[in-house]
Amino acid sequence: VRFSSQTTQDGVTERVFQLDGIPGVLWSGGGPSSGRVLLGHGGGAAHKLAPGLVARARRHVACGFTVAAIDAPEHGDQPRTEQDTRLLADIRRRHAAGEPVGPDIARRCADLAARAVPQWQAVLDALTDLDCVLAPGPVGYWGLSLGSALGVPLAAAEPRISAAVFGLAGGAILAQAAAGISIPLLFLLQWDDELIPRASGLALFDAFASRDKTLHANPGRHREVPPFETDSSERFFTRHLL
Amino acid sequence: VRFSSQTTQDGVTERVFQLDGIPGVLWSGGGPSSGRVLLGHGGGAAHKLAPGLVARARRHVACGFTVAAIDAPEHGDQPRTEQDTRLLADIRRRHAAGEPVGPDIARRCADLAARAVPQWQAVLDALTDLDCVLAPGPVGYWGLSLGSALGVPLAAAEPRISAAVFGLAGGAILAQAAAGISIPLLFLLQWDDELIPRASGLALFDAFASRDKTLHANPGRHREVPPFETDSSERFFTRHLL
Repeated sequence: VRFSSQTTQDGVTERVFQLDGIPGVLWSGGGPSSGRVLLGHGGGAAHKLAPGLVARARRHVACGFTVAAIDAPEHGDQPRTEQDTRLLADIRRRHAAGEPVGPDIARRCADLAARAVPQWQAVLDALTDLDCVLAPGPVGYWGLSLGSALGVPLAAAEPRISAAVFGLAGGAILAQAAAGISIPLLFLLQWDDELIPRASGLALFDAFASRDKTLHANPGRHREVPPFETDSSERFFTRHLL
Repeated sequence: VRFSSQTTQDGVTERVFQLDGIPGVLWSGGGPSSGRVLLGHGGGAAHKLAPGLVARARRHVACGFTVAAIDAPEHGDQPRTEQDTRLLADIRRRHAAGEPVGPDIARRCADLAARAVPQWQAVLDALTDLDCVLAPGPVGYWGLSLGSALGVPLAAAEPRISAAVFGLAGGAILAQAAAGISIPLLFLLQWDDELIPRASGLALFDAFASRDKTLHANPGRHREVPPFETDSSERFFTRHLL
């Protein structure tokens, strides 16, 4: 892990790092941390230092967690591949022409997930060795939308993830991965999501094998998750990780 | 209001009362209360002093609420009518014979609601005049299952109800009343409810006109709502009433 910057504000230290080309950031508090939370950002222009993600990270640190985020493949400081750039342009062109693009988006997400999962696992290995993070213990994952498209396959593959907040996602590929996940879950669904059909989100919640899973559904569109659900996520992680 | 008994334990005073034949109970704390919550018990053998309801009331008082419950018609200390006794026996007989009883139960609930709504309103009038309850202000209603079958029509008819927790309910009659309700809501649904079909519960949540409504769904049967949803209800009322 190579740290390139370190700033401390209101008791929260933010350290930007690179690990074998993976751009990441680590937030920690002054005291001992007894749990870790990984944050997976959303799609589009989002990245590991998007304002909403940073605010969430700082709140989690205040609760006693050490928090990490990385740029998803093709996002933030990760390199863009020509193949993905072409695929995105094709999706935009077909969407503008009124053609259905759901299957294309699902295929792209699956491709990004296949690259993101080993990156998250490498970061988890490296951070576990760092002084600032306590001995191996429970790890939570939070990620909506693209954060779930990558996080659900991660949780299915990685036994260190012991609780997760997912949501704003659906589709058969994720549902298949979900069937192999049995950790405690909080799943957020927007009742009027213009990107994820309601039935698809409900089916994904249904697909998780977890006995301890809770669906929180609120009115509104994809990006209109109400602020009080941030409190719900914090309480969920506190209940399961601390 | 005629009070028949008063006990104080751990700072919570419980007073059993009768108001024009309506049997009720009032819980209050030592300090000033700035919000009121009405509790509607479930069906079957439940009543205003069922242990779960008393425990919930005491927790709400600790949060700063004054809390009231009454026996639903045909429950607790309310008189049983011959008509309802016959109807119940008929429902049990047909259920045992494998016949569908959903419509009969819905009709019975509608009948109980028609009697319960004016009783709740009379209690609310009377309690507002009592010393122990502060000046008229926001009133919350909590009730699942039968508590929703009576509470949804109450909230539709009574403008003093300004936030409610409903759930474990469905059906066209309630959905029709729900369309006239626009207060903040928390709606609890059991994903494997053996009494309320999942689609019927989701349709009832969908039917509420409220812009601020949240669905919490958990795996398990009708009576298996997880204990942490009690915390959710408390936070919901604290957010909207205090």
